[in-house]
Amino acid sequence: MDVAILTFDGFNEIDTFLTFNILNRIKDSKFNVKITSPSKMITSMNGVSIEGQRDIDFANNADVVLFGSGVHTREIIKDKTFLSQLSLNADKQLIAGQCSGVLFMAELGLLNGLAVSTDLSSKQRLEEIGVEVLNQPFTATGNIATAGGCLSSQYMAAWVIANKLGNAAAEYAMGRVAPTGEQEKTVAHCLSVIEAFINT
Amino acid sequence: MDVAILTFDGFNEIDTFLTFNILNRIKDSKFNVKITSPSKMITSMNGVSIEGQRDIDFANNADVVLFGSGVHTREIIKDKTFLSQLSLNADKQLIAGQCSGVLFMAELGLLNGLAVSTDLSSKQRLEEIGVEVLNQPFTATGNIATAGGCLSSQYMAAWVIANKLGNAAAEYAMGRVAPTGEQEKTVAHCLSVIEAFINT
Repeated sequence: MDVAILTFDGFNEIDTFLTFNILNRIKDSKFNVKITSPSKMITSMNGVSIEGQRDIDFANNADVVLFGSGVHTREIIKDKTFLSQLSLNADKQLIAGQCSGVLFMAELGLLNGLAVSTDLSSKQRLEEIGVEVLNQPFTATGNIATAGGCLSSQYMAAWVIANKLGNAAAEYAMGRVAPTGEQEKTVAHCLSVIEAFINT
Repeated sequence: MDVAILTFDGFNEIDTFLTFNILNRIKDSKFNVKITSPSKMITSMNGVSIEGQRDIDFANNADVVLFGSGVHTREIIKDKTFLSQLSLNADKQLIAGQCSGVLFMAELGLLNGLAVSTDLSSKQRLEEIGVEVLNQPFTATGNIATAGGCLSSQYMAAWVIANKLGNAAAEYAMGRVAPTGEQEKTVAHCLSVIEAFINT
């Protein structure tokens, strides 16, 4: 399964790489997780430059599309030429966004009246455009998920794994990244956050 | 204050970037946090190439030196020519390592009989060379800290901030990255893990 982590200049390093690493815990090539970006090199919100691995078209054909957050999201979503390159389909794809990544989903018409999770600064903007914002780290309806707060990346990643491969796979991946001595508690809490939102 | 996050080919994305992002929550230029690497481009354990920001000599003069983990650590620590470029001083620098990053600290003679936190695979190797391994996410004595499990990066980062700028600064930084609706619990737990180990 192809997983596109959409990553733009100004991206939040936790959103992109915590998700990326957790999804890559699934071995046997079940997931093909790629940093997906509009240019070959992209620079993070704190100034680290990285190489993108796939271009935007990869997202249009991926099984899973994830929008992390970033400090330039509000400018990027005004670029209609760029946005027109994205042709996503929530009937066929899992689509999730985190913090300001939720603004992309609103702009692309993917929310359809759903209430969302996001961070404090994106909350204000989303409420201005009529989106209901919940005070919880994660929510999903069907194939559309949203999360708020950088460390909620773990919930987004676990939700993707649980939906595609089952809860046991999500528990395995989370156990591999949990703090030493806190594995059981970390896995149980993560699953408790996402369990109401797993498609069965 | 200069903070060197030592990052090598095969690096774990969570260890490097979770720490990097949390430390960068401290504004007003109090921290100058840089990805520090032996070559201009380095490639992560899951195949993402990034640009290093400083060369190894930056670590020798930094106020804080952090060793993340990686899949090539065991080969890198055999390279005596490379290791001889590192000249660290625990009397003047905070030095911390995570998972296989603790192997660097052992090889460089920085542990001095201290018990450590690490991950399961590094545990075996450290015990073989006579290092006591604790079943807890984080431990420190004086200026030397160790952590185990990728998500313990947050504890390492918070310990650095608390030591240099006080607990309130660590609480601020952790609150900025915590999941929405879980800020209070996340901050309190993080501080409870590190509070016994903060230099006063």
